[in-house]
Amino acid sequence: MKQVFKYIEEHAEMYLDWLLEACNQPSVSAQNRGMLEMKELVKLFLGKIGSKVEEIQTDGYPIIYGELGNGKEKCLTFYNHYDVQPEDPIEQWASDPFKAELRDGKIFARGVADNKGNLIARICAVHAYQQIYGELPIRVKFIFEGEEEVGSPHLEFFASKYPEKLQTDGIIWEGGQREVEDKRLHVGLGVKGICYVELICKGAKTDLHSSEAAIIENPAWRLIWALNTLKNEKEEILIEAFYDDILPLTDKDRKFIQSMAYNEAEVKNTYGINSFLKNVTGDALKERLTAEPTCTICGIESGYTGEGSKTVLPSVAKVKLDFRLVPNQKPEKIAQLLREHLDRHGFNDIEVIPSHGMHPFNTNPNDPFVDIVLQSVEEVYQEEPIILRNLAGSSPMYKMLKNTDIPAVQIGVANTQSRFHAPNENIFVDDYIQGIKVTAAVLHHFR
Amino acid sequence: MKQVFKYIEEHAEMYLDWLLEACNQPSVSAQNRGMLEMKELVKLFLGKIGSKVEEIQTDGYPIIYGELGNGKEKCLTFYNHYDVQPEDPIEQWASDPFKAELRDGKIFARGVADNKGNLIARICAVHAYQQIYGELPIRVKFIFEGEEEVGSPHLEFFASKYPEKLQTDGIIWEGGQREVEDKRLHVGLGVKGICYVELICKGAKTDLHSSEAAIIENPAWRLIWALNTLKNEKEEILIEAFYDDILPLTDKDRKFIQSMAYNEAEVKNTYGINSFLKNVTGDALKERLTAEPTCTICGIESGYTGEGSKTVLPSVAKVKLDFRLVPNQKPEKIAQLLREHLDRHGFNDIEVIPSHGMHPFNTNPNDPFVDIVLQSVEEVYQEEPIILRNLAGSSPMYKMLKNTDIPAVQIGVANTQSRFHAPNENIFVDDYIQGIKVTAAVLHHFR
Repeated sequence: MKQVFKYIEEHAEMYLDWLLEACNQPSVSAQNRGMLEMKELVKLFLGKIGSKVEEIQTDGYPIIYGELGNGKEKCLTFYNHYDVQPEDPIEQWASDPFKAELRDGKIFARGVADNKGNLIARICAVHAYQQIYGELPIRVKFIFEGEEEVGSPHLEFFASKYPEKLQTDGIIWEGGQREVEDKRLHVGLGVKGICYVELICKGAKTDLHSSEAAIIENPAWRLIWALNTLKNEKEEILIEAFYDDILPLTDKDRKFIQSMAYNEAEVKNTYGINSFLKNVTGDALKERLTAEPTCTICGIESGYTGEGSKTVLPSVAKVKLDFRLVPNQKPEKIAQLLREHLDRHGFNDIEVIPSHGMHPFNTNPNDPFVDIVLQSVEEVYQEEPIILRNLAGSSPMYKMLKNTDIPAVQIGVANTQSRFHAPNENIFVDDYIQGIKVTAAVLHHFR
Repeated sequence: MKQVFKYIEEHAEMYLDWLLEACNQPSVSAQNRGMLEMKELVKLFLGKIGSKVEEIQTDGYPIIYGELGNGKEKCLTFYNHYDVQPEDPIEQWASDPFKAELRDGKIFARGVADNKGNLIARICAVHAYQQIYGELPIRVKFIFEGEEEVGSPHLEFFASKYPEKLQTDGIIWEGGQREVEDKRLHVGLGVKGICYVELICKGAKTDLHSSEAAIIENPAWRLIWALNTLKNEKEEILIEAFYDDILPLTDKDRKFIQSMAYNEAEVKNTYGINSFLKNVTGDALKERLTAEPTCTICGIESGYTGEGSKTVLPSVAKVKLDFRLVPNQKPEKIAQLLREHLDRHGFNDIEVIPSHGMHPFNTNPNDPFVDIVLQSVEEVYQEEPIILRNLAGSSPMYKMLKNTDIPAVQIGVANTQSRFHAPNENIFVDDYIQGIKVTAAVLHHFR
């Protein structure tokens, strides 16, 4: 492997250029921006390593499927996505989100952490390996979807329609990050689920002069009152039966959670906060982060929100809510419980529009593939990784893998300060290069 | 007066053109759009009737002051404003808000009802009167400000610095409207006050991935909980001492309120609602509309509000609130009570930014000027008007007139379906022409 690592280091600049090129192409699935161009770019990159490339058509953006290598015994799959989150609020970016910029040893761009850095790093790893060894020792598959940021609506279709393409011995999944301070890499074995909905409350058919508020219902107020019934100031989610399906943590779960590194001071400093929610700290904080479901207002809007004042009675009020779910909670059931809750509290006029849902998913930590990954990480980082289950970020693992026992492991090139989905998203150049090496090491050891 | 009325009818097209020209010039004070151009246009119009014109400089947009006529005994003042509300939501307009359009006998444009229709009608009335009689029988003053839609921050300065310009025997104030169905004109003798504030709640220093919501405070939730303490579902405002200063209604007040026409079916149809707030109807509805203070969410915004879904934990949440106040309530005191209320309920981190305030104001209904106006309205409309006090719309009357006993009466060219501050704002062409006549009649009788 030394030679492969050396090749990667010597060609770091080229591999960095590949990443910048990928980042400079906008690909916002939620807004249908640049998706076609990005898809073509991904195919071009797969072409560089001689992969067979297939475009799997869906009702949305296609899945780019690649296959490479003749190894008979083992098959390794890379799951990544070529779409990114919208960049707003644009004014908080120090540089153009779609013109990747190098500053302080970091690359700043929308999607560089989530997850173009990983997508390109997987390709670079195969490339470097080929330069030294020629033929790959195993078969490699690429499943690159374009709808992860909008809930992967066609991944189930892919899994059920193409079982032979899905078949593999292990998946390196997107995600994963490095602790900035103690340098250790997270190895993720599973994620929380998500139930994302929009609530819409309507009043008069147009906005009115606010003097009419004396006699005409304000949908913004109704939405406030409805939201207030969902969660209280103690952060308790008040939807009836919301917590019922949650499995109690086992001792093993607690051990996992407690072994996780979490630099509270660093996070507080990065985020500019004085304390964590409800002042939790230590193991309680880690448990909250990894084992507690949430109910989050991701966005709310009603009436006039521009500069200055406008005396308006809004005609509509909307809120986007996301619930992060822990094992055994089901997004469809949560949406149903929410509907019933609103009805029970007199808010049957408030529309609930389910946007997307994902089940939680956890890989069996005893699968031999997990050990291969851990060994590869140690080889590159010279440091034991942090194994995490129930990662806080959500991922469509369940959609793809629910009827299989394929192990999926998340490792990646981002870090705990990468500002996923936020302005000034970034990764370290060094982490990117290390990520290429780790991937190459997995390729090498998994045969 | 017949000749003047005839002249107005014969020159209706010209007077309509003047109005369209005024409407086509954007003048959004809240956004500093077109204010300079509109100010010049107003001066041009005053020039058409030979008025002396003075620009009263303030720290904001100037007040255009005009003076005309040599009548020694009486002085009549017109108060209007040349600024308009922002036009959003732009997508709900059937035509360009700043390109006045004639449809179904109506003029559609931002500001046509509030209050360019009135401003131009006053000038047209003087113009028509001059064509028939030459010299005016009285002195006429024009006070046209450019900041009414942002709270008239310099009207007090004007009143105290230029008492001689303020001096007059009666003011025709902007506002007023006609009942669409029974045709009767509203004659307004006073307005509610207003206290407009913005609340800002801050969380982490940037938006974060929503998975962080398990451990990091969400300012949108805090704002929801804070708002929920301000008003309950019974529409009771819960701010301590909020109602304390309100004077009980007198029998005379009740008589005024009950005499007011209010076509509930028509309003419900126009606004597309099935019932009024709390199902009030009849006298109770009229009392609510004219004598109850309000607490209204005019706008709320946090996080991602664009198309599709974004899993974001917002870093800031903002709400714009307006309180409509009834006689003896004071906007400064309400802002103070709000601050104390938030502190008392644990929301001392939420910033309160007062935007503008106006005291309620009522004219003495026994002033002889009121009778002149009523007589003029009857002459033109051949119908008894509806006298209203405590009009629901707010107006800076108190700012200008608090230290005087000058009577101010609101009559205008809009109607109860004019969609003030809302998309597709409009007035009837006929009402505009009638409004010119009424104004000319007041000029004639007030000597």
